[in-house]
Amino acid sequence: MRLSRFFLPILKENPKEAEIVSHRLMLRAGMIRQEAAGIYAWLPLGFRVLKKIEQIVREEQDRSGALELLMPTLQLADLWRESGRYDAYGPEMLRIADRHKRELLYGPTNEEMITEIFRAYVKSYKNLPLNLYHIQWKFRDEQRPRFGVMRGREFLMKDAYSFDLNEAAARVAYNKMFVAYLRTFARMGLKAIPMRAETGPIGGDLSHEFIVLAETGESGVFINRDVLDLPVPGEDVDYESDLTPIIKQWTSVYAATEDVHDAARFEQEVPEAKRLNTRGIEVGQIFYFGTKYSEPMKAMVAGPDGVDVPIHGGSYGVGVSRLLGAIIEACHDDAGIKWPEAVAPFRAVVLNLKQGDAAVDAACEKLYAELQAKGVDVLYDDTDQRAGAKFAAADLIGIPWQIMIGPKGLADGKVELKRRSDGSRETMSPADAVARLVG
Amino acid sequence: MRLSRFFLPILKENPKEAEIVSHRLMLRAGMIRQEAAGIYAWLPLGFRVLKKIEQIVREEQDRSGALELLMPTLQLADLWRESGRYDAYGPEMLRIADRHKRELLYGPTNEEMITEIFRAYVKSYKNLPLNLYHIQWKFRDEQRPRFGVMRGREFLMKDAYSFDLNEAAARVAYNKMFVAYLRTFARMGLKAIPMRAETGPIGGDLSHEFIVLAETGESGVFINRDVLDLPVPGEDVDYESDLTPIIKQWTSVYAATEDVHDAARFEQEVPEAKRLNTRGIEVGQIFYFGTKYSEPMKAMVAGPDGVDVPIHGGSYGVGVSRLLGAIIEACHDDAGIKWPEAVAPFRAVVLNLKQGDAAVDAACEKLYAELQAKGVDVLYDDTDQRAGAKFAAADLIGIPWQIMIGPKGLADGKVELKRRSDGSRETMSPADAVARLVG
Repeated sequence: MRLSRFFLPILKENPKEAEIVSHRLMLRAGMIRQEAAGIYAWLPLGFRVLKKIEQIVREEQDRSGALELLMPTLQLADLWRESGRYDAYGPEMLRIADRHKRELLYGPTNEEMITEIFRAYVKSYKNLPLNLYHIQWKFRDEQRPRFGVMRGREFLMKDAYSFDLNEAAARVAYNKMFVAYLRTFARMGLKAIPMRAETGPIGGDLSHEFIVLAETGESGVFINRDVLDLPVPGEDVDYESDLTPIIKQWTSVYAATEDVHDAARFEQEVPEAKRLNTRGIEVGQIFYFGTKYSEPMKAMVAGPDGVDVPIHGGSYGVGVSRLLGAIIEACHDDAGIKWPEAVAPFRAVVLNLKQGDAAVDAACEKLYAELQAKGVDVLYDDTDQRAGAKFAAADLIGIPWQIMIGPKGLADGKVELKRRSDGSRETMSPADAVARLVG
Repeated sequence: MRLSRFFLPILKENPKEAEIVSHRLMLRAGMIRQEAAGIYAWLPLGFRVLKKIEQIVREEQDRSGALELLMPTLQLADLWRESGRYDAYGPEMLRIADRHKRELLYGPTNEEMITEIFRAYVKSYKNLPLNLYHIQWKFRDEQRPRFGVMRGREFLMKDAYSFDLNEAAARVAYNKMFVAYLRTFARMGLKAIPMRAETGPIGGDLSHEFIVLAETGESGVFINRDVLDLPVPGEDVDYESDLTPIIKQWTSVYAATEDVHDAARFEQEVPEAKRLNTRGIEVGQIFYFGTKYSEPMKAMVAGPDGVDVPIHGGSYGVGVSRLLGAIIEACHDDAGIKWPEAVAPFRAVVLNLKQGDAAVDAACEKLYAELQAKGVDVLYDDTDQRAGAKFAAADLIGIPWQIMIGPKGLADGKVELKRRSDGSRETMSPADAVARLVG
């Protein structure tokens, strides 16, 4: 992509309304624009990252055996009356009346609707286990939206719903999602730590939050540092095998949010040198809630003995749009964002340090064409900005690799390759730079 | 994908509420489920087709130089007051009040919002041309939603918006979209014919609808049959070149909806043998509307002479979710859907005609594994249904290629390959079947 043809409205000023660094950087880097309180448009740079995050979430859901579908954003109020949550949900639910005065709502979550879909079609335990997920926009009418996409009102969430014959089978489904989440966040370059959590309005008696450590996080967390070094299951993890050893390994090391923190246990279990009290950002939460929805909504299947029983359910959320904020909180410096490679909007940016110089232009065009031909997702800064502005913009938007081409280096047949994550620089031939970025 | 682990709730009965064949087939094939009037959940099979259509639309928008972003579903009412459309839009606009009584609406289209984004950042003609698009859910509160996804209330649309300095440049943008649309629909296996159209609530003085011929279409159309044989520009079309010859070729042959039909001209221009009066389904519409939004909303750029002028705009819609219905209307028979290959939910289905027979099971597993290894998107019907039910289901869901494996053929080392589009069958070795489906 040529920057001269891209739409990247970088802001020079620090936007006043942004209280935290991720919000500030997303606005400055031209990733988002606020259209109403807590409602954002995703400009092309932000959209690219959103899609990469969404795709990682999707691949790991698919790998675990979950099936993707897509439920609509609007739901019937009557559906929520069946579960009893319509009145319980409070002012965060956006309630809507259509032209015929029929009561709708903008879905904040989908337990009711997926249960309605399930009960319409599935009648026998033979069709279980089943885990259905979608990645869809939700709305939660926050009293005071803030922190940009971290606590927006219209937000993108992946939510999966598992259906099983009994609690033992439901725990197998829960464990699969637990492992899928470990993999999902690790692939994004995050250390997201599962912590035992309260269940809140979703209900149920078993829940874990996945929390990224960041000083700006919304909740205090207490962990044993050992949890930071636990191995994440590889791509070849067998979801049909018994996953409990993995779950045990991750849940036996102390890690808790302040809501459920047990100070006595923490001090007893964790050696002082390994105690860490910091803050974190929730990026996912998983729930086992048994028959909380299937009983009132009559989602029953015939068991092996022919008797109808309510299914045991769980739900599993990932905050897809929120993850952009969380990743930036975890990966930035004073100059801007440092995208992990897997979610970067582009893998590399070519900086033409003297636009209009025939030799430099030609070298840049050649390198840009070669990188594209080899499948590298590359941005080419072909604007007529001065070199200093190009350096600053490249650092701000956080592309992992910068290739700088100027007349001086080029006279020696060299370009400079800078790695954004650690600032390291190397001088090399254009061919070597291409080789470094391929594969 | 193994059918035993997929979620494909096929209906045996013809649903009473479905008035047209595409709606009936989408319900029967387990592609969609109605959640409220005109509001559908996309079950896994339908979701797969939706994503394939979306991806073709995206690729052709990108190829033409348009840039993808994503605007939110909810918009501020005040934005629509700026253009004067808030009061003009009528009861099809879903109006919403949030917890603070702030007026919102569920966007039926995005001219206002994209103009707001544009004017916030773009100040000079040097940043033009610009064409921004998104693929997002919209809502139109139809008085009487019907025909399934063809006239739903919550629907997925691709809408692009072009910004140019003057009318001549805006017409270049219009022509690019015209060509991109020809390519988009042709890639989906459709003959979509551009027809001069009225502009309706979008406004402006130039518009074309792209219409797929189908007896069940909502509008009558009159065409010269020659238009059916016009060449569609190839993948190598140069969007930077002068596209007017292509536009002229397509617009000089008579093709008009009944709204703008000129009977006298039709009879004068078109030889009787080439006159065709049939019906059609609109799948896209493009508009040039000049300064209709930029003037009231003050979307101005400085021209080369330094004087601020309102930009000239156009908008370009594709009905992504509606296209599923349109494709089925154009591609089906009494047995079910006949998906064009580019949008099929799977490319092939392996039918195990005697599940439980060790030799047949082994042959099916081997073929299924080989097809997957070679990157063929394949469904394996490994259920214990009888062969007749498997044939019927495969025909209903419309997978382009069926590979049937039963004990009799297998004794001779043969499988049967059936092509859904024309019903042709061939007997061959499993290896030959794989070779046929690869590449």
